[in-house]
Parts: sequence; C-alpha cells; structure tokens
Amino acid sequence: MSRQPQFDRQKVLDRALELFWSDGYEASSVSKLLTVMELNRGSLYASFGGKSALYSEVLDHYMAMLCKNLFSCSLMTTEDPKKAITSFYQKAFVEQEDKDRLSNGCLFFNAVSELNKTEPELSGKAVNAIQWIRQLFLSRLLEAQKAGHISPDKDAVTLADYLIGLTAGLRALCKSGADTDVLQKVIDTGLSPVFDK
Amino acid sequence: MSRQPQFDRQKVLDRALELFWSDGYEASSVSKLLTVMELNRGSLYASFGGKSALYSEVLDHYMAMLCKNLFSCSLMTTEDPKKAITSFYQKAFVEQEDKDRLSNGCLFFNAVSELNKTEPELSGKAVNAIQWIRQLFLSRLLEAQKAGHISPDKDAVTLADYLIGLTAGLRALCKSGADTDVLQKVIDTGLSPVFDK
Repeated sequence: MSRQPQFDRQKVLDRALELFWSDGYEASSVSKLLTVMELNRGSLYASFGGKSALYSEVLDHYMAMLCKNLFSCSLMTTEDPKKAITSFYQKAFVEQEDKDRLSNGCLFFNAVSELNKTEPELSGKAVNAIQWIRQLFLSRLLEAQKAGHISPDKDAVTLADYLIGLTAGLRALCKSGADTDVLQKVIDTGLSPVFDK
Repeated sequence: MSRQPQFDRQKVLDRALELFWSDGYEASSVSKLLTVMELNRGSLYASFGGKSALYSEVLDHYMAMLCKNLFSCSLMTTEDPKKAITSFYQKAFVEQEDKDRLSNGCLFFNAVSELNKTEPELSGKAVNAIQWIRQLFLSRLLEAQKAGHISPDKDAVTLADYLIGLTAGLRALCKSGADTDVLQKVIDTGLSPVFDK
C-alpha cells in the first residue's frame, strides 16, 4: 500500500493558486512554490507530477472556487436571467472587497495572455474553461431573450462572445489599477447593448 | 571616444520585440534574446543595460510602431472623429492579415497582465502607455460628441475607459483564437453604446 501524502491537498492547492494567480506561471519558480506550499521537492513531484501538471490542477481548483464563490450566487442559480448576468458583474468587480485579489485579474485570462504561445496545452485548458463560462452566459442570455429582456433580432451567440470580451476587458482594467467607480461605469456602459428592458 | 555598436539598433529592437511580444517577459530568457537579436552577452549589456532595461526600451519601440502602423492611419489623423475610432478597430482587428501576430495580443496589455505584481516598474510603464491611448480616444470622443455623433448626456471620460476595456477584451479574444467574424461582431456590439448616429 502506498503511503498517503501528509498534507491537505486542497489547502496546498489554495497556496499554489495564490502564487500562480498573483505572479503568473513563469515567475512562480519551483522553489517559490515549495516555500508557499510548505512541501519538499520530492512531495511536490510525487503528489503533483511537476510544475506544469500542478498548474493544470490549479486551473481546475480555480474553476471550482469560481463556481463556489461567484457563479453559484449569480450566473448558475439566480432565477431571473437578466439579474443572473448583472449580479455576476457586480459580485466579480464591484462588491469584491479584496482589492489586492481584484488586481490579480482572472487566472484563465492570465493563463491565455502569458502562455498561448509558449505553453499551448495549459493555455488551451484555460480557453476551454472560458468556453464553459461562455456557454453559461449563452444559456442565461437565451432565457433573458425568451423573457423579453433582449430584443429577438439580437444574436445571443454574439452577445455571449461580447460578454466574454467585456469580462476580459474589465479584468485588464482591474490589473491596470482602475477603481470601483470606473469599473461600475464601464459595466453599466458595457451591459447597455445587451439588455433592452 | 567610445566605440559605436556594430549593429542597427532599430532592427535589433524589432527582433527583441518579436520575442517579448510572442512569448512574454519571463519566458524570453537572455539566452533566447541573444539568439534572436544576434548579439553576444557583452553587447546586450553594454548597449541595452540588461533584460529589464531592454524590455523598457522595447515598450517605447512598440509604441513607435503602433503610432506609425495603426494610430497614424486611424485615431491620430482621420478627420472625422467617429471614423477615426471605428477605423482603429477595423485596422487593428479585422484587416490585420497576419493572424499569428494578431494572436500575440497587445504588448502593453500583455505586460500589465504578466507583470503587474512582479515587475511593477515595467507594468507601470505599460499602464502609462495605455493611459496615453485613452487620452487619444478621449480627444476624438469629445470631437465626436461636439459633432453630434454622441449624445450630450453621455460622459466622454467613461466612454474612453470603456473603449480601453473593449480593446483589452478584443485582444484577449484574439489570444484565445477568436476568428475575424467573431471579432467583427464583438466590435459592432461593443461600439453600439458609444455612437448614437
């Protein structure tokens, strides 16, 4: 029987996420990862298979965190589809009190931005995660259109692509230091072409 | 009298730009830079002062290139202010035939995304460049408002922030592999809350 690892995997993944999210993939050296994860090199490789495999698992861990802390109280559960979308933007950008975390941006967009040419597998995994969020937007947009919040002549697929672009743009503004007032105004302007009433 | 460097500085900066733009700051090791720049280590340090100083000069070089190839035939010169803004988006995203280059995104947003926590000076320089572009948007938006293309009750400063967000969002879509058709539709949707006629 193999020995079980002597650590809490979720807690250790939380710490790896914090470093990758803040500093990016390349700047998070194995030695920095070992320090924040409080592991030795042997445990890291035995339990996670190396830096690239760890990052891949951290992408899953981040998605689970987004689902739990953000989507489950907006896009995934709010009954009214228009409110589901607007509350996503409020919770993600305006009601986020941890400004340091806000300035980390979104791990998926960070991954695509840093790694699309150098680590296509990791970047591709982040693109797939973004596509999943796009589908979530799309299903709520179609509901909102059925409910009369969106004019029938608008293309919901285009609006879903547009919302992904809007979200990426807002994340970039956060990383550039935009304050809550600017974010709120950009959200209001950005959602105005989506909903008609 | 000090010896003049035996290379064309602009050409060497072009090559450094290609690598940083594609692979990012951290993944562009000094040894890769020396290979693409066709310099030896001594010349790199003597002429550019090291990797960080080189990146800083590459940010200036990129801005000069943007001015020459993009702003000078759209935002900076087109007489009609609405057309100046719409043609910027067409030229930057739709008429760009080099799809590999399009998937590099924008060096300024790449710098902010990768380096805002780890290299604040370099990221800050990129933020300043983005602010300069925002001012360019703002001056053309104010003209467009004066010309009646934008309703007087809209806040041009908010629209300038929004256009920076839209541009960053479109760059992120490019890095995620969006095709021209998607980019065109997102541009059309994204500009619809800006102009009233």
